[in-house]
Amino acid sequence: MFTDRHRLELPSLPTLANPQLEAELIEIIDQKTKPPGSLGRLESLAIQLGLILNSTSPQIVDPQIRVFAADHGLTDEGVSAFPKAVTQQMVLNFLAGGAAINVFARQHNIALKVVDAGVDGDFEPHPDLVSLKVMRGTRNSLTTSAMNAEECMQAITCGMGLVREAPGNLLIVGEMGIGNTSASSLLLSKLGKLPIADCIGRGTGLDTAGLAHKEQVLTQVLHKHRNLKNPLEILAAMGGLEVAMMVGALLQAASQRRILLIDGFIASSALLVAEKLQPGVKDFAVFSHHSAEPGHSQLLKLLDATPLLDLQMCLGEGTGAAVAFPLLQSALGFLNEMASFTSAGVSNKPHV
Amino acid sequence: MFTDRHRLELPSLPTLANPQLEAELIEIIDQKTKPPGSLGRLESLAIQLGLILNSTSPQIVDPQIRVFAADHGLTDEGVSAFPKAVTQQMVLNFLAGGAAINVFARQHNIALKVVDAGVDGDFEPHPDLVSLKVMRGTRNSLTTSAMNAEECMQAITCGMGLVREAPGNLLIVGEMGIGNTSASSLLLSKLGKLPIADCIGRGTGLDTAGLAHKEQVLTQVLHKHRNLKNPLEILAAMGGLEVAMMVGALLQAASQRRILLIDGFIASSALLVAEKLQPGVKDFAVFSHHSAEPGHSQLLKLLDATPLLDLQMCLGEGTGAAVAFPLLQSALGFLNEMASFTSAGVSNKPHV
Repeated sequence: MFTDRHRLELPSLPTLANPQLEAELIEIIDQKTKPPGSLGRLESLAIQLGLILNSTSPQIVDPQIRVFAADHGLTDEGVSAFPKAVTQQMVLNFLAGGAAINVFARQHNIALKVVDAGVDGDFEPHPDLVSLKVMRGTRNSLTTSAMNAEECMQAITCGMGLVREAPGNLLIVGEMGIGNTSASSLLLSKLGKLPIADCIGRGTGLDTAGLAHKEQVLTQVLHKHRNLKNPLEILAAMGGLEVAMMVGALLQAASQRRILLIDGFIASSALLVAEKLQPGVKDFAVFSHHSAEPGHSQLLKLLDATPLLDLQMCLGEGTGAAVAFPLLQSALGFLNEMASFTSAGVSNKPHV
Repeated sequence: MFTDRHRLELPSLPTLANPQLEAELIEIIDQKTKPPGSLGRLESLAIQLGLILNSTSPQIVDPQIRVFAADHGLTDEGVSAFPKAVTQQMVLNFLAGGAAINVFARQHNIALKVVDAGVDGDFEPHPDLVSLKVMRGTRNSLTTSAMNAEECMQAITCGMGLVREAPGNLLIVGEMGIGNTSASSLLLSKLGKLPIADCIGRGTGLDTAGLAHKEQVLTQVLHKHRNLKNPLEILAAMGGLEVAMMVGALLQAASQRRILLIDGFIASSALLVAEKLQPGVKDFAVFSHHSAEPGHSQLLKLLDATPLLDLQMCLGEGTGAAVAFPLLQSALGFLNEMASFTSAGVSNKPHV
């Protein structure tokens, strides 16, 4: 399906390893007026952010959330507890400022735009809506490929272009799409070579019978696409338009040394695809929270990630990332603002 | 030692249980435009805060941090890696705005005052310093009682009075006192009936030999005071002036329906004492973080608490609580600002 004609031009990643900068950051932190190591993960976070932003006094500037919305043909098989129409309804809710992500974005002064990556419905123009609709939802991956090669590449390329034009040096990719936990479970199972039962959960609220049905359907989808090997082909066959666009957004953002503040299950699955396409992109990622969606544990293991929060959230939209955002500000705050032992006249000599 | 003359007048606690209010809060949350339960611990937190503030639309108003500083006679036995002089030096650092707690308090716009509960040194007057010095550090609890009954009661009463006069409806009690992890370990071991080895750690940075020495000293202190039973007597014998003042502050704050945002090991030990004096005070507490100080796990178990964060921090000063503060704002933000299914026109009907 993907021929030479479909060669994707991926932006290259800058080198993060910088032993001299890292040593300088450690030295600054060790001189702060506190017992060594006592700020725990905020200290390693400060070092990581310093390396990404290539500075001993890194600052987060103009942080951005993009919420990618799209529909999924696989919902025809009854894999979600909510009807497909909710995707469009929730986009309108985002635009009206009433969703959870709106609340947390306002709380932390993070700019929020909603991206129509492929909703099965039309919208009036709105200043906070970016229309990049590739198609009105994916096809049903049980019967065919969710996207063809052109559609998948278009989605990735749109995600790249969107971020290229965006301000700021920190990106949160959120999503809304009834059925997208199924798409992410499929990607995780296939790319991570894991049994589907370890990759699925109740999504937005399936009951036990619904979960069993979902497992059965997803098993059939995996069987249909069992011969695929290439991550781009796998994404096209079983992914979502919003997931593909998130992949492009993450790749572009890392290439520009932006901090990728990763939300939960769906965002992590997009990062997994991005990492398969461009190894090293995950080093630009800060993992915000451990989702209650069961497959997230597997995803985090594959990505060798330990998130900052574990609050049993599983809402998507970028909400976990937005809620964790102030922890990054705290890490940079202590790095940039705390006094040193010398400047404060505090003794750092162990007494005898 | 504590006679009838030393009877402490404890403020009574308001009743938190309110089934009607709780049902209203749950109903509001269940109507929000999100899958049920998908905001995880933010949802239970919103309910707890609503019950404490006695409102279906609770708001945090004018949050306050008080950092209590005092010295410890037990440092004569070499139980801390830092010299005693650091307590006074760090108070000056707080007043100059250069410590970690200053950074996080500024980040979240939380008012910060430093309280001299018993530092072994003098300070010039400063607008952010409250002088409630009971004495110049406690006595050495290895040889005598750290405080006598009058001194301990004075510290508790000062903590109550301080909070009675303070604005706002959320309190963080932080502390600074070289040697105070030892005092808290002693209180935990004695009040929780736990082996001292399960209650101690390296504090601000003891090495292995230092830790063994600390265990030996604390074992001797516990032996000396082995016959005490009353929590107030135990606090006086082995606690600290800053811990006693925190006990009073927490009791007063709960009596006024303030949210107690609890920091790490030392603050939790003060809450344990407060809970022994006035059972139920812990229901007003939100546990901000799991400290890396090993005894904190035991304390949290005794208090039946699951903190919001686990970032391997162990700095004290109230820093863990300040870093967790925006999570409380997120909980109230979604409760107060999110649209309902009805108001947003989003379907909450499971499809067939």
